[in-house]
Amino acid sequence: MYDSVGDFMRRCSINRKEKATAEGILFTDQYQLTMAQLYYRQGIYDTTAQFDHFFRSYPNYGDHQAGYAINAGLQWLVDWMQEAHFRDQDLDYMRGMTSRNGNRIFEEDFLAWLKDNGNFSALNLYAIPEGRVVHPSVPLTMVVGPLGQGQLLETQLLNQLNYQTLIATKAARIHQAGRGGLMMEFGARRAHGSAALAGARAALIGGADFTSNAGISHALGFPPKGTHAHSMIQVFMALGGTEIDAFRAYADTYPDDCLLLVDTIDTLHSGMPNAIIVFEELRKKGYDPVGIRLDSGDLAHLSVQAAKMLNDAGFDKASIVLSNNLDELILLQIITQIQEEAPHYGVEPDDVIGRLVYGVGTRLITSAGSSALDGVYKLVAVQKNSEWLPAMKISENPEKVSNPGHKKAWRIYDKRNRATADLIGLADENPDSWDGVYLHHPAKVRTYRSIDKDDVSRIEPLHVEVMRDGKLVYEMPTIQEMREVRKKDIALLDLGVRRIMNPHIYHVSLTEKLWDMKQDIIQSMRV
Amino acid sequence: MYDSVGDFMRRCSINRKEKATAEGILFTDQYQLTMAQLYYRQGIYDTTAQFDHFFRSYPNYGDHQAGYAINAGLQWLVDWMQEAHFRDQDLDYMRGMTSRNGNRIFEEDFLAWLKDNGNFSALNLYAIPEGRVVHPSVPLTMVVGPLGQGQLLETQLLNQLNYQTLIATKAARIHQAGRGGLMMEFGARRAHGSAALAGARAALIGGADFTSNAGISHALGFPPKGTHAHSMIQVFMALGGTEIDAFRAYADTYPDDCLLLVDTIDTLHSGMPNAIIVFEELRKKGYDPVGIRLDSGDLAHLSVQAAKMLNDAGFDKASIVLSNNLDELILLQIITQIQEEAPHYGVEPDDVIGRLVYGVGTRLITSAGSSALDGVYKLVAVQKNSEWLPAMKISENPEKVSNPGHKKAWRIYDKRNRATADLIGLADENPDSWDGVYLHHPAKVRTYRSIDKDDVSRIEPLHVEVMRDGKLVYEMPTIQEMREVRKKDIALLDLGVRRIMNPHIYHVSLTEKLWDMKQDIIQSMRV
Repeated sequence: MYDSVGDFMRRCSINRKEKATAEGILFTDQYQLTMAQLYYRQGIYDTTAQFDHFFRSYPNYGDHQAGYAINAGLQWLVDWMQEAHFRDQDLDYMRGMTSRNGNRIFEEDFLAWLKDNGNFSALNLYAIPEGRVVHPSVPLTMVVGPLGQGQLLETQLLNQLNYQTLIATKAARIHQAGRGGLMMEFGARRAHGSAALAGARAALIGGADFTSNAGISHALGFPPKGTHAHSMIQVFMALGGTEIDAFRAYADTYPDDCLLLVDTIDTLHSGMPNAIIVFEELRKKGYDPVGIRLDSGDLAHLSVQAAKMLNDAGFDKASIVLSNNLDELILLQIITQIQEEAPHYGVEPDDVIGRLVYGVGTRLITSAGSSALDGVYKLVAVQKNSEWLPAMKISENPEKVSNPGHKKAWRIYDKRNRATADLIGLADENPDSWDGVYLHHPAKVRTYRSIDKDDVSRIEPLHVEVMRDGKLVYEMPTIQEMREVRKKDIALLDLGVRRIMNPHIYHVSLTEKLWDMKQDIIQSMRV
Repeated sequence: MYDSVGDFMRRCSINRKEKATAEGILFTDQYQLTMAQLYYRQGIYDTTAQFDHFFRSYPNYGDHQAGYAINAGLQWLVDWMQEAHFRDQDLDYMRGMTSRNGNRIFEEDFLAWLKDNGNFSALNLYAIPEGRVVHPSVPLTMVVGPLGQGQLLETQLLNQLNYQTLIATKAARIHQAGRGGLMMEFGARRAHGSAALAGARAALIGGADFTSNAGISHALGFPPKGTHAHSMIQVFMALGGTEIDAFRAYADTYPDDCLLLVDTIDTLHSGMPNAIIVFEELRKKGYDPVGIRLDSGDLAHLSVQAAKMLNDAGFDKASIVLSNNLDELILLQIITQIQEEAPHYGVEPDDVIGRLVYGVGTRLITSAGSSALDGVYKLVAVQKNSEWLPAMKISENPEKVSNPGHKKAWRIYDKRNRATADLIGLADENPDSWDGVYLHHPAKVRTYRSIDKDDVSRIEPLHVEVMRDGKLVYEMPTIQEMREVRKKDIALLDLGVRRIMNPHIYHVSLTEKLWDMKQDIIQSMRV
């Protein structure tokens, strides 16, 4: 139809080369590049600086709010950092950028310099490991190194860590509401484009046991999960067959993994009876059916009825998979309703709840209700003559004033070994030398508390050294290990902090020394 | 520090090979693969089928709702379709997938067959072009071809089209609230991972004029925009300098493009006076400053004050760039407040509003408040002996019953040439032969209206043929052309439909023939 399909494809498609550009070091805001040139021009590109990445508030989903977050995304960030550099085509592109008056924006000396120095080879990175419970204001990552390199990292670091932490947090909440039932992530179709991949990874770290996404499962070493859609039943029916024909075809093809979706026509009067007939046929052939999936209607009521029908037919171990816009609040309600409703039908509530499996899509992969973590990346200190000088932005809102200086953070555990507070202090402070722990409110004057040394069971440093001079010096845990860390950390939280709605506010505090320094700087900067 | 960094990196990093797998044809839900094998086994993989992609409801942001959506994402989907196929490593991976009992899930004959046939080479694709105004229930894309190929496309199609349409829609709303002011997308740091790229593209189609993201700007042929962050000022201050030193350095480096961020210390008492001094110095050197950026505080009040200060200094053309969690509702309010407040300070409101530029981040790139478009991909018909047989899912909710059959859709324009309704009908219907236009409500019985032929100025078919047998047969418009289409389509909507809050509901209707067929099938499927 067209003579030169190739020609017009080039006009607007992104080819492989352009994709590599868009995903490489130029996956950044233009102002990082203009600032980098300015630093180069001023001779301060290599000034040692520290940037902190932290979030300001827990995700707030509107009618419910997180009381803790789960850290995620570090591994992929580090992978990107180790590959990213200015290739010749990146520099060519920058060479072509012009100002309003048509002059070049980036000059040749800077581009030549970027070719060798525009990478992350001199950065030190300190981070809280993935899978750990994290709280507002505590730096999740601290980047120390040449000012220009630290600045160039900002956009990518925020992009990767904000999203994965957001999703790992949502997954942990849904997992918690599901009371340990198996949880499957299957949000690819509603995810924000290729974020489906990072989102699946974060969901696995945070609480999902599997993802339906085949490719990323492979990359992460998890088996993908999935059975069939309504469309399979519809095909059989449109071609003159019936629901049970479709079920039989499925059971024949996958006798080991027979899980049937029962709500295409009528769950209780068609799907369930047909599924049970097919399960009985399977049993005669020596196979054990997996169970059924409910994707519409009153999931609590239908779960109870389905459990009863399965029990009556002798399939009392068959799973009941739930899906349809699930999230932590809906699960909470489904489980509550099952507890009330099951006894009316002579079914043990725990028997129903114990066999539930959750398929969670849209609301997990987009963190519905709170679609972004408000993570920021702030310059907090620069070095001059080997001395750290704190840097702050004094904005209108005292709560938004970031914590200055070269810092550390610790988690304080009480006598019961519950995490009671995260404490941010200066890097040269040593909690082991303290008589007790002094916790100052991060923003309010004269608001503090002290904990006796006897009441503290443990003071745990939160950061590990991940990169030294751009080289990885930390053994990244596997995703399985991150999952274990997450479980352990959540178990160390007070139940009130773990609450799905209106959680108790976990304390994040400053040491006296950091608090005093912050006040001094604020005073000195007031004009 | 470690002997074998390479070893443990391999444990959990995604290398290039795995990334290619995760982004290729296996970027799909596992059940698409299991269903494909079942269709192959049943001998119906090549049965001709039609799948429709449509969304059920406009994005609802909580306190405001969209009255129209902007279609986007097609080009990238088509690019993916033309590349995706089962590579040997994909088949190897599938070869290794096992059932609960350790048996292989995918058998060798199917894998061999997939190698040659597991692609989209036989699909026909009909779609509404990108940039067009679109409404619920009207198919945005219709896929016709072998059942197995159509099924394998589902996850990727939904992933790409749902997200880009969501963001293009949000961008159009923000652009509308901004009354034509220049709009810059800069959400990369809060975007969902690499969706920042697709999101920037969709934002440009929907209403943004630029994006700050350098790499994707290059790929799409737009100049990236950006100036400097607070951190630049902080660096100068921490090293013993002042805000004006930082401004001067910026003006020296970028005299053509001098735009200064004025809220690091105090907008009206430090940032603005300092910026004006530097602007005056620039003017003496023969340069015209671009303007200032406000990123915190009462943006309406500060815009008026900044405009006044700039005017008094003779910079009455300088832009005022606003940023800080902007969206359509916040812009609406800022502009209203400027209209009320400016006269009190002797400033012309339109003079302030006319020089505003909008930097829009998080709330655009994540479509805050409505983080997913509820787009679905439904089997609607299969062919048997060259005859189309409709397929439907009868669910509990009558509004969710999809429209069966092989279809077309038209937009009906009234005498004033305003779009008055979208009409969905069967493919063999021909509106040109009608005496008038009969519009049946999509779900409610006996709810319809008719329009006299004299009152109809135009009946416009909405779909174009994009792919025939997997080959592109449509000249994709450029993004600039999509932007023109969007502007034109929005201008053809009633003002009530365009309203930011509580918009008038645009009519989407069925032809009498389609309505009757749908009722017949529903009756025949009731058990």
